Amino acid sequence: MADQKKMVAEITSMEDDFAQWYTDVVKKAELVDYGSVRGCMIIRPYGYAIWENIQHILDGMFKATGHQNVYMPMLIPESLLQKEKDHVEGFAPEVAWVTMGGEEKLEERLCVRPTSETLFCEHYSHIIHSYRDLPKLYNQWCSVMRWEKTTRPFLRSAEFLWQEGHTMHETAEEAKAETVRMLNVYAEMCEKYLAIPVVKGVKTDKEKFAGAEQTYTIEAMMHDGKSLQSGTSHYFGDGFARAFDIQFTDRNNTLQYPHQTSWGLSTRIIGAIIMTHGDNNGLVLPPAVAPIQVMVVPIAQHKEGVAETATALCERLKKSFRADIDLSENSPGWKFAQYEMKGVPLRLEIGPKDIEAGQCVLVRRDNREKTFVKLEDLESEITRLLAEIHDSLYQKALANREANTYVAHDMAEMHKVADGTNGFYKTMWCGELDCELKMKDEIGVTSRCMPLEQEDLGSACVCCGRPAKHMIIWGKAY
Amino acid sequence: MADQKKMVAEITSMEDDFAQWYTDVVKKAELVDYGSVRGCMIIRPYGYAIWENIQHILDGMFKATGHQNVYMPMLIPESLLQKEKDHVEGFAPEVAWVTMGGEEKLEERLCVRPTSETLFCEHYSHIIHSYRDLPKLYNQWCSVMRWEKTTRPFLRSAEFLWQEGHTMHETAEEAKAETVRMLNVYAEMCEKYLAIPVVKGVKTDKEKFAGAEQTYTIEAMMHDGKSLQSGTSHYFGDGFARAFDIQFTDRNNTLQYPHQTSWGLSTRIIGAIIMTHGDNNGLVLPPAVAPIQVMVVPIAQHKEGVAETATALCERLKKSFRADIDLSENSPGWKFAQYEMKGVPLRLEIGPKDIEAGQCVLVRRDNREKTFVKLEDLESEITRLLAEIHDSLYQKALANREANTYVAHDMAEMHKVADGTNGFYKTMWCGELDCELKMKDEIGVTSRCMPLEQEDLGSACVCCGRPAKHMIIWGKAY
Repeated sequence: MADQKKMVAEITSMEDDFAQWYTDVVKKAELVDYGSVRGCMIIRPYGYAIWENIQHILDGMFKATGHQNVYMPMLIPESLLQKEKDHVEGFAPEVAWVTMGGEEKLEERLCVRPTSETLFCEHYSHIIHSYRDLPKLYNQWCSVMRWEKTTRPFLRSAEFLWQEGHTMHETAEEAKAETVRMLNVYAEMCEKYLAIPVVKGVKTDKEKFAGAEQTYTIEAMMHDGKSLQSGTSHYFGDGFARAFDIQFTDRNNTLQYPHQTSWGLSTRIIGAIIMTHGDNNGLVLPPAVAPIQVMVVPIAQHKEGVAETATALCERLKKSFRADIDLSENSPGWKFAQYEMKGVPLRLEIGPKDIEAGQCVLVRRDNREKTFVKLEDLESEITRLLAEIHDSLYQKALANREANTYVAHDMAEMHKVADGTNGFYKTMWCGELDCELKMKDEIGVTSRCMPLEQEDLGSACVCCGRPAKHMIIWGKAY
Repeated sequence: MADQKKMVAEITSMEDDFAQWYTDVVKKAELVDYGSVRGCMIIRPYGYAIWENIQHILDGMFKATGHQNVYMPMLIPESLLQKEKDHVEGFAPEVAWVTMGGEEKLEERLCVRPTSETLFCEHYSHIIHSYRDLPKLYNQWCSVMRWEKTTRPFLRSAEFLWQEGHTMHETAEEAKAETVRMLNVYAEMCEKYLAIPVVKGVKTDKEKFAGAEQTYTIEAMMHDGKSLQSGTSHYFGDGFARAFDIQFTDRNNTLQYPHQTSWGLSTRIIGAIIMTHGDNNGLVLPPAVAPIQVMVVPIAQHKEGVAETATALCERLKKSFRADIDLSENSPGWKFAQYEMKGVPLRLEIGPKDIEAGQCVLVRRDNREKTFVKLEDLESEITRLLAEIHDSLYQKALANREANTYVAHDMAEMHKVADGTNGFYKTMWCGELDCELKMKDEIGVTSRCMPLEQEDLGSACVCCGRPAKHMIIWGKAY
């Protein structure tokens, strides 16, 4: 096991330096590489396969809820970006501008899309005329660009992959229901497939999306206690519709502005997976999106019949799972460490004695628990173990969140719980920006969300002591 | 049928003006919309669903041949683009340049990728060290941008969607075999799934990809006799590897440059589908990629039980096919015309008398043939008809190609066959650029390819009469 130790030693321990641990895992698990474009990721096959699995599940959920995919241009003319005032103020400082086409200077500069509300609205103004044209439930999978100063792979990069849904509705009620419906889709994705518990809530005015009336969010807690905003869903009212002059004839033959939503989830969620489940041996992947669910490692593979039996077993497993085999000349110890680093949920070991006994060994990535399994029971046992791994990961993440969630009633308590810790800090809040800014200045936390499930923690704002309007969660965020 | 005639009359007939017919179909079948970015398409749900079906099939074929998906940045620094001399000369005149990030002027301008050889090479220089790291068989699905002067939806647009495969190999032989293998994948995609017959061949030096040693192509003939290059596969030798300093230690412990390929197929293929199979009633879609394969149209749907029976039938069909139903208040005639315009391969009509008789009517889009089918035989009959439609489309396209393929032995014959026609013109060729340019100037044709299946049409170049080296096809191209 010497070579296993050697590899494990190559990553920084998360207790020593969580940020460096993250960077090490991203690199050693071969998720990304850095190229010469500042802040842009190269997503390698293993990282991209995780994204493909996420896409596949989410796209199915979008289609099951009646959404259709489209594709909009990647460039937005400056005049189009400027049509909605709040929106352009929010995004103009962080866009990349195309100013030349070939040898020619463009008459109007074009930005690389940071998000596509303006493009969808222009298109909607062409195709929405009557209530019969509504709702429009569109989504697109694409890459977007935000010219960030400091970047980290998956968490904050100049370019990232995402999906952005953009919908138009007859009534405000219908649009609001859509906003919540898609928030629930994101929460289901995180909890049922990624084993990441999330808090559903509403952003404060300060933290909401540029141009939105209301922004819903799912907030997850990472292993280090910091928060990660993992998906957002926005209700726009008819603000963009008015700016883009989108009108339809309603059922009473009157001209109306439609009501709009948008919602997005990005490759950032891969950062959430890493920081929620990973450990000092590397990545730990939730089975639903792991590119390889079972890795077959032959033991004493030079002995007669081992490689053949292991290969046949792998082929058999491929019918039911994402399975692979490593027949390279590396030692079993090296392989164990390698697929632990890559977070493969189950390792299957099989050697001459196992073959003789008609069995093999399954080793869980998350807790290294070993199970001897009769070959005839393999599929059912793997199914059971993958489900168990998912549940364990979820419960462990939930326990971590609960252990790092604090309640405070006034600033003295807030200091007591938040100074020197990371976590979710639950308090009451008066709803005023002043207090939100003071929490940032004095405690170093930002508002994460006002949970949809409100709790009664008293009647006074944690900060000013005046009557509280909301229960809110504060945190230190990625 | 008055409203059906009205709608059909809305598109220009292809005999009157093929270009206008194309534009009408693209718009009326709701494939694209135009936004305010010159030359960029908005791909609408119906158009995007065709692309998704193509992606799904091709991606499966790529994975079955051992390829993995990755994602590279969308921007390329100018210095990186310039590393391979022929490549930059080919692409620099037609790229869009990002020169500003937020408020700041960039130190080095970045182009929006027109193709990603340079990015893949930079990454490969980081990860290829030993023969054990080879081959690398990568692909990416993305959008690219080429600042074209004149654009048409799908056929030539400033931005388009595509996949680009980029592979690295130990030996030239292996890389060449990959180039041909992927050409065959494209040919299979076109012929088996899109019902488009293609000629496989090699491009002349003049027409090959910037930086390639050899470009393979599949060429299809459109309904009007013009050619469409439908997919290309390039062999690079070790030119880029040398420019990017990618070296590996071979099996004899010697440093070597790897050999490279790239291959791409784009949304242009949707243009090929439209112009190969479409007719004066609109789009005609090959069943394998049609977003809707069977459209259920209830007849006399206000009568008791019709809508319910038709709906139940549609639900039943959804288990085996991409089926949909139109229960709107539009007349059956309007619906017939609408789904003919959209190219749905089969229409299923069912009314009170059919229900009584336990049957329905299936109408083929391509030839309007009607079949009465017992409801219990529906699935097998639809399967049979969809296969028949595919074969008919393929045979019809092949017959069109054969009817418009000419042979010429000298310039007099070339004038005789090519003046006033569009088509494939087969000749012998000496291999010299002079003759290729003269064919362009004098006849108005460009070289399409030197077919892999060479025919012996004589020994003299059609243009100069000197000894011929290749059999070649000329044409007027999109």
